[in-house]
Amino acid sequence: MTNLPEPHRRTGRRPGSPNTRARILECARARFARTSYDKVSVRAVADDAGVDAALVHHYFGTKKELFVASIELPVDPAQILTPIREAPIDGMGAILAGLVLPVWESPGKHAVVALFRSAMAGDDVDLVRNFFLEVVLREIAPRVDEPTGTGSLRTQLVVSQMLGLLTTRHVLELDPLDRVPVDGLIDVIAPTLQRYLTGPLPDSVLRSAKD
Amino acid sequence: MTNLPEPHRRTGRRPGSPNTRARILECARARFARTSYDKVSVRAVADDAGVDAALVHHYFGTKKELFVASIELPVDPAQILTPIREAPIDGMGAILAGLVLPVWESPGKHAVVALFRSAMAGDDVDLVRNFFLEVVLREIAPRVDEPTGTGSLRTQLVVSQMLGLLTTRHVLELDPLDRVPVDGLIDVIAPTLQRYLTGPLPDSVLRSAKD
Repeated sequence: MTNLPEPHRRTGRRPGSPNTRARILECARARFARTSYDKVSVRAVADDAGVDAALVHHYFGTKKELFVASIELPVDPAQILTPIREAPIDGMGAILAGLVLPVWESPGKHAVVALFRSAMAGDDVDLVRNFFLEVVLREIAPRVDEPTGTGSLRTQLVVSQMLGLLTTRHVLELDPLDRVPVDGLIDVIAPTLQRYLTGPLPDSVLRSAKD
Repeated sequence: MTNLPEPHRRTGRRPGSPNTRARILECARARFARTSYDKVSVRAVADDAGVDAALVHHYFGTKKELFVASIELPVDPAQILTPIREAPIDGMGAILAGLVLPVWESPGKHAVVALFRSAMAGDDVDLVRNFFLEVVLREIAPRVDEPTGTGSLRTQLVVSQMLGLLTTRHVLELDPLDRVPVDGLIDVIAPTLQRYLTGPLPDSVLRSAKD
């Protein structure tokens, strides 16, 4: 740890070459996206980036802190949330698909796939659950709460189709689904999302949604 | 390992109390369903079942072999594949949803969730991919291959909605989605599956599906 810039734990700042930091982060994202959290070592990330493990610790702290840094959302949430707030209800399925699906294509894909795999492995289920409940639902559910009380369920059905697409296209990489152009995929998925957001729901579902 | 019945490695048989075996298997399923593969120890499963770890090894061999035993499909595949083979194309969405979704409810849920989580963690991606490509697609794709060449993509879209539901309902356990009665959920999902199986596909998707 000699000859390093002053550690961020003391100062809260993270000095050093922006290129080196960015390279470490990119290597971390790639590792966390293709391996379970437990199997990723800071040393392996450092090797990928061509730096010493001490430098990785210096920039990012613990492995957990490196992970959190690597899963930062690849877009500013406002870029997605603002159009959704302004979207007409009748067109929200297409708008949602058009905003979210392209984020999963490179280079944002690594970060999202890393977080999702980690959550499925059991380490960050709460992180992902909270993301959906606190961020996604809070924005969308009130807009599609018709009849009253169904907004959360409608939004969760949308999430189910979105996550299923993430799974089959970007984790399982089923062929030919992983080769479909994203614009085509948006066209295929949009009517599903729209039906969940504003379509009729069976009585048994209405009852449980409102419980 | 003294005083145990003869080990299955020598004989291929697995003697012993059926109740003990079943209890070990049930405990293993539960462990593998809520933790990543790496974090499950044979000792912990043995503790849960109230037996010695040596007995678990005796019955099932290695941890991997125990895992494979624990992820056995909770239903005879013929129970699902035979009705699908005989289903009219126009009603296949509802029939598929009606056959698959109930399997995920207890007690079959543990086995399916365990396998899915393990795959998402990276340990069994190939196992799950092969299951879908070799078993599911082989049965369904030829029946919905209209226009020619689209059967695989149509089936994978169905898989995407199914896996997304598994994720949100049984892994993330989003509320209220995890409280909806399964019959209601079948009604909600069936039209989505039917549209993927037999509905129109945009030109850009048709091109890539047939490549």
